[in-house]
This record gives sequence, C-alpha cells and structure tokens, in this order.
Amino acid sequence: MKIVLAPDSFKGSMSSKEVCDCMSIGIKKALPTAKIVKAPMADGGDGTLETLINLYEGHYVTCNVLDPLGNEIIAKYGLIKNNQIAFIAMSEASGIDLISKRQLNPIKATSYGTGQLILDAINKGVKHIYIGLGGSATNDGGQGMAKALGVSFTDVKGNEIVLGNGNLSNLKHISLHSLNKKLANVKFTILSDVQNPLTGPKGASAIFGPQKGANHDSIKILDNNLKIMAQTIHNDLDIDVDSMPGAGAAGGMGAALIAFTNSTFVSGADFIMQKYNLKEQFKDCDYVFTGEGSIDAQSRFGKVTGKITDLAKTVNPNCKVIGLGGIVAENIKALNMDAAFSITNGSMSLEDSIKAAHNLTIDLSENIMRLIK
Amino acid sequence: MKIVLAPDSFKGSMSSKEVCDCMSIGIKKALPTAKIVKAPMADGGDGTLETLINLYEGHYVTCNVLDPLGNEIIAKYGLIKNNQIAFIAMSEASGIDLISKRQLNPIKATSYGTGQLILDAINKGVKHIYIGLGGSATNDGGQGMAKALGVSFTDVKGNEIVLGNGNLSNLKHISLHSLNKKLANVKFTILSDVQNPLTGPKGASAIFGPQKGANHDSIKILDNNLKIMAQTIHNDLDIDVDSMPGAGAAGGMGAALIAFTNSTFVSGADFIMQKYNLKEQFKDCDYVFTGEGSIDAQSRFGKVTGKITDLAKTVNPNCKVIGLGGIVAENIKALNMDAAFSITNGSMSLEDSIKAAHNLTIDLSENIMRLIK
Repeated sequence: MKIVLAPDSFKGSMSSKEVCDCMSIGIKKALPTAKIVKAPMADGGDGTLETLINLYEGHYVTCNVLDPLGNEIIAKYGLIKNNQIAFIAMSEASGIDLISKRQLNPIKATSYGTGQLILDAINKGVKHIYIGLGGSATNDGGQGMAKALGVSFTDVKGNEIVLGNGNLSNLKHISLHSLNKKLANVKFTILSDVQNPLTGPKGASAIFGPQKGANHDSIKILDNNLKIMAQTIHNDLDIDVDSMPGAGAAGGMGAALIAFTNSTFVSGADFIMQKYNLKEQFKDCDYVFTGEGSIDAQSRFGKVTGKITDLAKTVNPNCKVIGLGGIVAENIKALNMDAAFSITNGSMSLEDSIKAAHNLTIDLSENIMRLIK
Repeated sequence: MKIVLAPDSFKGSMSSKEVCDCMSIGIKKALPTAKIVKAPMADGGDGTLETLINLYEGHYVTCNVLDPLGNEIIAKYGLIKNNQIAFIAMSEASGIDLISKRQLNPIKATSYGTGQLILDAINKGVKHIYIGLGGSATNDGGQGMAKALGVSFTDVKGNEIVLGNGNLSNLKHISLHSLNKKLANVKFTILSDVQNPLTGPKGASAIFGPQKGANHDSIKILDNNLKIMAQTIHNDLDIDVDSMPGAGAAGGMGAALIAFTNSTFVSGADFIMQKYNLKEQFKDCDYVFTGEGSIDAQSRFGKVTGKITDLAKTVNPNCKVIGLGGIVAENIKALNMDAAFSITNGSMSLEDSIKAAHNLTIDLSENIMRLIK
C-alpha cells in the first residue's frame, strides 16, 4: 500500500515536516509495511523556508534585521547553488508570529526586515530570489522592504517619511535614484496563493487587516494610506499596482515587489507540489494524507489541502484523500476529500490541543490506518 | 455492506437510540445502500428504561415519587405483558441527573423514590421486575427503597430512623414484619455491570462516592454507615451482604435488593445484547459501530463498548469495530477496537460538544463511511 503524506503546517503547533513524521509513525504502527512518501507542503507562508531548504538541500544564513516593530532580531533565509539562488520567507523577518498578539499594530508595522534579508542576499551575489509571502504582521505596502533596498519615500517637503503604513499619509514622492544597483540583475519569484488587489473591499487591509490587529476604523486608515502609495507609484513610476491580482499579498508586499523589482508571481503550493513531483507520485498511490490547522470551506480555494486534493483526484480518481486538521469544519463536503478528521480526542482547549498535537496526530493516523488497512 | 450500530448512550447528550439514529443518517449519506441494524445499548444505568421499552415494545407508566433529596417528582417506569413484568431504572427516580451538581449530597440522598416505583408496580400485579442499577445519586445502601417497601429501620429507642445514609449511624435494628406481603411473589432481575462489594476500599462509597459529591472525609462517614447497615442486616436477618459482588452497585442498592427481595444479578449489557441477538447479527456483518461518552481504558471492563467489541471479535474476527466517543483516551490499544474517533471537530468546550453532539456524530459517521465504503 502506497501512501503519500502531503500536509501543510498546523499553524502554531507543527511544521509540515513534523506533521508528516507524526502521520508516518502512526501509519507504521498500524501497517509497518506501508510504503510512505513524505511531501511536507507549504504555500509561501509559514513553513515555506523550512520546506524549501529541505527540498533543495540548501543551507541557512542568518542576518540581523528589524522585526515588524523595529526591534533587532536575527532572521534566517536560505541559499543554494553557490549562493546563486536564495529562499526568503517574509514571515521570518516580518512575520506575525514574531510579536505578541497584544503588540500587533498594522499602522506601525514595517516590512523593513524583509528588505534587509533581500539586501544581504544580493550582497552575497544572489541572482534569483524565491520570496514567500504570507504570515506577515505588516500592512505597509512593502514600503519598509523597498526602503531597505534604496527606494526613497519623501513627503511634501522632500524629507524621507518614517516607516510604517501610518506615515504613508505624508507620502508625496517616490524615487528610485538610490535603488540598489545590483537589483537590476536579480530575478524575483514570488511564492503566494493570494490573489487580492492592494486596496478596496477585497484589498490587503480589509481582508487581512483584522488578523493583524486592525479594527473597523484602522482598516479605513490602512486602506487609504495604501491608496496614497499606489497613487504615488502611479504618478512617479507610471506603474498601476492597485488592481493587480496579488498586489495585496502580505500587507501589500506584492505591490512593492511588482513596482520596484523584476518579479513574477507563482502559486506557492503549485510550485512546491511540482518540486515533489506529486502528479507522478499520486498516480499509483492508494491513499493521500493531507491536513492543515483548520480544514474548512476555504480549504478548497487556494489552500494546500484543497490543491492537494484536487491534484490527487484529477490524476488518480481511485486514490482516497484523507484530511487531518486541528479543526475540521462541518461542511467538508464542499471539499473533494473522502474524509476529514480532527486530531482532537475530546473537549479540549486550543492550548491543550496544540500542546498534544504531535501525539494526537500519531494516534489519529494509527486509528485511520487500522480502519483502512 | 452490513453494519450493526450498538452504542451506549453518550451521557448528558444523547440516548443510545439517538446515537444510532445519527450514525445511521451519516452512514446513509455516504452509502445509501448500507444495510443497517440498530441496537441501541444500555447496561442498567442511564438509558436502560428507554432501551428496554423500545426492545419489548412496552409502555410507560408515571408515578409521583420522591427524588433523592425528598422533593416530589413524576417518574417513569415500564410495563409489558399485561402488567406481569415491569422495567424500573433507578436513575428515573433516584438518579444523579435529577439534581444539580451543586445539590449533590450522598449523605442525605435517598433511594426512597425507587421503592415507590417498585411499590406502584407490585400494586398493579407485577410479578417480575427488571431493575436497572446505575446513575444513582444515592449512597444509602438502598435503605430508602427498602423503607418504601415496608422494611423497618429503628434506632436504639425503637424509633424509625430518618432517610439518608447520614442517619444509618443511628441504626440498631431492621425488621421485616411490616414488609409488603406481595413481595414474596415478586421476582427481581437486577441489571448491573458493577461487581463492587458494599463497603471497604472497593466499596460503593470509595469508588462511586466521589462522582456523587463525596469528598475524602464524607467517604469515610458514608462507608462506616454502610458497614453499620450491613452489620445490622447480618445481626437481624442473618444475611451477609457486605462482601457480595454487586452489593455496592448504585450506592448499595444491590445490598438491599439481596437482603430484602428475591433477586438475581444479571449483566445489564449482556442481557440487552442477548435480546438483540447480537451474536447472530455480528456473524455476517462487515462493520460494528459502537460508542459511548468516553472511550477509555475502562471501556474494556464491563462497559458496553468493551462488551460489544469482545463479542463481535469473538464471533466474527473479520468484522471491524469502530468506536465513536465524546472523548477518546489516547491508549485505546488496551481495547480491542479497530479504530476509535472523537466526535469533536476541533478545540471546543464540553458544553459546546454536547450541544453539537448530534450533528458531530452524523458528520463523523459520514466521514468514516466515506473512507471505508
């Protein structure tokens, strides 16, 4: 029996590699002869760097950068092929998990640290950067990142404005005259599954602002300030980023990458699925185990579990796809999976389920395998 | 595909019939052609009356009785065969679910109401009473029940003592001279899966006292008073109830039934399993769905899910037994089941899981069925 394990990370409790390992342990307990293929997934957000490094057998580099609130931290990125290619995940330098919930402040948060990672990479001679968007604490339209790369953001008096979305209201001009010269020879591949525009009702602030700490009032401010930035980019660089699909990814980081770098968007999940050659792997497999922190109706749309399910069912309608989740919403029929189970084994708090997640995943996988073997 | 549904009730949320119905709905959603046999189980405790009435197509009778704290309530019991046979569940008149957690008081609680049900039945001409023990709030050694039937409990001055375990410390003599004469012609079958003696470290007070509201200190009082009752029964009636297996069932109700009535103990779960002819039903079935509020290591010992699993695996080693539970303990390998799943679909409070239990059971059953069909 061949089983492909292709889960996303369980945000806040397990990396996708850990999920694979736990699934594998549980399955082997029930069926030691199972042929298991591990494909720990990611989609550009949390866990993307680890997944890419494992996939490409790259190595980590560390770098002193500013976190979203401007505090110095040490962040990681990855290098492969004699430093020709870098893997950068925005969540490592500008991620929401770097600061406490209480401190979330999308008005103030800056993506400057991600720019510092990019700068470090290009100073090492990197020619191609894969940058994973997702899991960011920022809503600054990538202004901090751009600033770190030498883009000038000035107010009506010609003074550089301070970092953070809140100060974009003072933005008058953008200039590339100090832009790092090496950038001209660097290609960016943006790994993201977000299609949202920069502003408006489906924009970065309205859709992703709330999870970054924005309320009804601050969403308006955030959105207005991103509009000012888009308008300024339009005026000074003649680029229209506002309505581009993906411009709203990671608090508008998508827009800045479009405007200031040589970038191409790629679906993060698709990219990683291809690298694992999952299309071939699914063809002769009996079961696919996927999973994520929360399996719900949205899983069908761009999320890892939905993409894995669709690909598996397309290339091999006979294989069964089983989803494991911290939470499994009741309406999973909207998904294509054959079955989905929560790892929780009784009434428990979120904290307790996160603490016990590894053992719960092992137990559930064993239970499922005992049933289907 | 033939599937036998044989769950216990999920205490506090669903009767075993409701569990069967939810399992059936979920299974049929995934496999409309499934041949389903419903065998809602019970073991003498909660849900026993409903299960027996359904099994025997009996009818309910109501009766004014005193609840464990002495308040008047209306309680049900069942009659079949021209009132020759009655089904009485102690939980209906003296049950723990009749009073709030805050009011639990095993020192004061009385089984008098159960005696009133018995009296009502024998006054209707009943010759055989099946009495389910379990789920009681009482720890009075069945003294209340016996008192209702005419047994006299007197103190050193010859005065009748007050109801409740706490007053057994004043007990000096027991007399049967006022015992209801009709009892001589009534046979009792006690449905219980409890093997505990009346007193001591494995007795009613030590083992079941805590769930009835007893603490370390009151357990000692409760146990001492039951010892006084056992000693008095020994002195005045020459019956040794103290160490009899089952005497400790339902707060000592077992002891009183042994001492004052013509009783035989029968395993409640076994009795009901036989009535459903499950031995035959399991022989050609593919899957057995069982379940209970909490599936844990104790499920193997005398609990419905353990008994169902053992019988199914004995008569048909090829059938797979699947357990559904509100809670599923991690060490289910101690059980014989093939798999066990919690109906919870994420971190949730006990209250929420109870509220949503019906839909959660439908969803889980559908998920399992989609996997195995």
